[in-house]
Amino acid sequence: MSTRLGDLVDSLGGELIGDPALLIDGIAPLDAAGPSHITFLSNPKLRAQAAATRAGALILSRADHEKLQVYAGARVLTDNPYACYARAAQHFVALNALPVVPGIHPLASVDPSATVAPTAAIGPGVTVESGAVIGEHCIIGAGSFIGRDAQVGAHTLFHPNVSFLAGCRIGQRGVVQSGAVIGSDGFGFANDKGRWIRIPQTGGVTIGDDVDIGASTTIDRGALDPTVIEDGVKLDNQIQIAHNCVIGAHTAMAGCVGVAGSAKIGRHCTFGGAAMVLGHLTIADHVHVSSGSLVSRSISEPGQYTGFYPLAKNADWEKTAAVVRQLDGMRDRVRELEKQVRQLLGDKDSSSRD
Amino acid sequence: MSTRLGDLVDSLGGELIGDPALLIDGIAPLDAAGPSHITFLSNPKLRAQAAATRAGALILSRADHEKLQVYAGARVLTDNPYACYARAAQHFVALNALPVVPGIHPLASVDPSATVAPTAAIGPGVTVESGAVIGEHCIIGAGSFIGRDAQVGAHTLFHPNVSFLAGCRIGQRGVVQSGAVIGSDGFGFANDKGRWIRIPQTGGVTIGDDVDIGASTTIDRGALDPTVIEDGVKLDNQIQIAHNCVIGAHTAMAGCVGVAGSAKIGRHCTFGGAAMVLGHLTIADHVHVSSGSLVSRSISEPGQYTGFYPLAKNADWEKTAAVVRQLDGMRDRVRELEKQVRQLLGDKDSSSRD
Amino acid sequence: MSTRLGDLVDSLGGELIGDPALLIDGIAPLDAAGPSHITFLSNPKLRAQAAATRAGALILSRADHEKLQVYAGARVLTDNPYACYARAAQHFVALNALPVVPGIHPLASVDPSATVAPTAAIGPGVTVESGAVIGEHCIIGAGSFIGRDAQVGAHTLFHPNVSFLAGCRIGQRGVVQSGAVIGSDGFGFANDKGRWIRIPQTGGVTIGDDVDIGASTTIDRGALDPTVIEDGVKLDNQIQIAHNCVIGAHTAMAGCVGVAGSAKIGRHCTFGGAAMVLGHLTIADHVHVSSGSLVSRSISEPGQYTGFYPLAKNADWEKTAAVVRQLDGMRDRVRELEKQVRQLLGDKDSSSRD
Repeated sequence: MSTRLGDLVDSLGGELIGDPALLIDGIAPLDAAGPSHITFLSNPKLRAQAAATRAGALILSRADHEKLQVYAGARVLTDNPYACYARAAQHFVALNALPVVPGIHPLASVDPSATVAPTAAIGPGVTVESGAVIGEHCIIGAGSFIGRDAQVGAHTLFHPNVSFLAGCRIGQRGVVQSGAVIGSDGFGFANDKGRWIRIPQTGGVTIGDDVDIGASTTIDRGALDPTVIEDGVKLDNQIQIAHNCVIGAHTAMAGCVGVAGSAKIGRHCTFGGAAMVLGHLTIADHVHVSSGSLVSRSISEPGQYTGFYPLAKNADWEKTAAVVRQLDGMRDRVRELEKQVRQLLGDKDSSSRD
Repeated sequence: MSTRLGDLVDSLGGELIGDPALLIDGIAPLDAAGPSHITFLSNPKLRAQAAATRAGALILSRADHEKLQVYAGARVLTDNPYACYARAAQHFVALNALPVVPGIHPLASVDPSATVAPTAAIGPGVTVESGAVIGEHCIIGAGSFIGRDAQVGAHTLFHPNVSFLAGCRIGQRGVVQSGAVIGSDGFGFANDKGRWIRIPQTGGVTIGDDVDIGASTTIDRGALDPTVIEDGVKLDNQIQIAHNCVIGAHTAMAGCVGVAGSAKIGRHCTFGGAAMVLGHLTIADHVHVSSGSLVSRSISEPGQYTGFYPLAKNADWEKTAAVVRQLDGMRDRVRELEKQVRQLLGDKDSSSRD
Repeated sequence: MSTRLGDLVDSLGGELIGDPALLIDGIAPLDAAGPSHITFLSNPKLRAQAAATRAGALILSRADHEKLQVYAGARVLTDNPYACYARAAQHFVALNALPVVPGIHPLASVDPSATVAPTAAIGPGVTVESGAVIGEHCIIGAGSFIGRDAQVGAHTLFHPNVSFLAGCRIGQRGVVQSGAVIGSDGFGFANDKGRWIRIPQTGGVTIGDDVDIGASTTIDRGALDPTVIEDGVKLDNQIQIAHNCVIGAHTAMAGCVGVAGSAKIGRHCTFGGAAMVLGHLTIADHVHVSSGSLVSRSISEPGQYTGFYPLAKNADWEKTAAVVRQLDGMRDRVRELEKQVRQLLGDKDSSSRD
């Protein structure tokens, strides 16, 4: 199915320079786009590629518009070409999506006391326990589990094989990828003479609107109070969020990040892949942690933080790692040298002064 | 449901100072507890908060008891307030739990040759293969898989969507969180002129009593002999235990830890989040590894071990990382300086001696 | 079931020195093997153990054959004893495997438009969506999900609870462990004034022949073009492959590795556990990355690369980490010392010259 370019720009926002009657039937990258595609330029390094694109329409900034003279197709001017492209892509995916058939699959197990909205689609092998509430236009993928009294907001999509355990809540327009586990027990044990005594975890997980949760990501329920994921948070795959964390609104975490218990993370933060945050820390808004970095203390100031050992050829690493192990001694040697040199310089000065 | 304080203390252990007839209906933290709650003080920093709590009963140590004069409610004196609180929490969770309905759900697939105890509850979508044995009072959550000849000890709980593969065994009172995989094939391949030849993995996984296994944690089966998880081990989420590891009794690992093949880890160890252990190592009892640290050699001495790059502002990290890459050269420069300074000092000495 | 040694060697390759009529019924390690077992020697350190083995047959290299005089059983000489052993193990596992019963389990949900080969076995709780194709002799374990238009090549095995999403493809003789997720949405968002706009991910995942994928490993679908896993790749558990990565043929990755988006990794590479690769990098063929190392730039030269902070007793680490934080200043101090010493040496020289 295709869309008139004028209608598309009306829905996306932006200024159209070109023929509103042009029919667009999808998005494509600069080098693969043809006359019925819309594409975008957000990285100035790709300006030459944009000049050569065969795309019917190009989303770009006003600055790039002025610098790009060759391209002859239609132009969509916007402050944020990448976001505009994202919305265009959403438009065409929705346009071409298979219709969702509402209803409960005969191989699903839905407790009579659960509330499933009539527009929701419950796949085969799904279990919905007592008291759970599934909102309008939700899709619950095959094999997923919705525990007792859990709540799933309208237009939220669970891919297949999600575990969403008792008492957890997620808001509207969420997307949860396959294998994610929400509401597993927090890791809480008291040590008694070498044995671990399990501490029951009875808080849930409270997730806001417009939250994305990646494949095999795990979010533990709180001990007494819930673990909280605020609106607009984006979590990639294989992330671990421990009990009683608070992840501030619009924070994004790349794959394999881990956050230990009771950490409070601010809004609009980003975490590179495999970054780790220790427990009971507080991280301010707008903090950005690089991949592979371990956050071992609270961070009160916005900015970019990093801490990983630089990669080297193995032989070189062996040499530098050996020195790292002796750094404390090396500092002492430098101090001693400074003392000796001061003495020598003093001698010299005094001898000069003689 | 509530419990007489005297009965509660009888079951928990500890000395009661106060009215045994007081009715307690649950636990709560110091600042949220009311007259029908029991709470606890284990961190001396919270003594002021304990003095102000409205809780009906307070679990605390004898030392804190003597220092805490203001609090007017009942007191439970014990050597280990945190463990006592854990047991109290278990008591109230059990008291308020919904009754488990034993039996096999009609949407489960249980092989006729499997043995399922009459008190066990098998959820919808569960598969139990031939020869498997499910003990008394087990709960097997929806969508879980129990492979051929696997054995699950009494009172063990599998949350939904657990994969417990052929021939694996777990003891009594275990808890396995959703998404965990136990008995996946060990990662064993022989390289033949650049191609990898799969080595069949026919050992199982043998898990003791009172073991907790976290969400999306994976434990590979051994190549010939089994992978072993001893009694009382506690594994958090997203942990990877490779084939033929032995994890000693009562060792605890936080989220995202990885242990490579054939590592033998002692008893009563702890591993912080995302710690990594290389293969074929031996780690003594009572070793504690900090978060984010990679264990690259065997550890024979108890103690705390650490190895992660300290976090810094990105600009500062870039400066220190540049020096790390040159540390070998810097050591040489310090050595050269020491030689030169020795020479200068020698000259000075000799000239002084002149 | 047992196999004549002569027949076994015919199928494995290698030269037999000994009785071809000897009946072998399985493999075993050197120290546990008996007269009906075949075992192997590939590590020269185990030569003494090989001399003492009771195994009926021993796979070994010509070099070891000449050095090993005591052992009296049959010998199988080969260039690569470990690969030969792997094939022997595969032989006996296949010999003793339970027969697979082809067909679709009544508790599976298979769309009428899907194509399931008559020799394939579809377990209970499996969902196969419209247009999917399951090849000959495939086994799809209980609870697995095969999305719309996905394709699974002949002789491929999915363990239970695998999620293989719409449009993904895997070739022949693949093995996918439980909990793996293939085709989850890539992590792509455009930031618009602090909010994240989802970028639809419509590329699939294309996986070659003879690929192994570990438990809870996640492979995201591409944004527009597919994510590509070439022939013979071996991925261990808990690995994260982000959208639009290309993993070159016969590359192997140990557990907990993460690869960020659009990284292009060469052929015949290996990655130790928990190694991490940043996005948009290119890594040459035959690159080997050590465990726990973060690859932050492209690597164009084959070899072994490492970058992790060396482990130490915590007290020692605290001392060295404090120096690491000051390394930039320490370099300046060394420079200053060099300047001063040069000056002192110059003075000395000039005074000598006086």
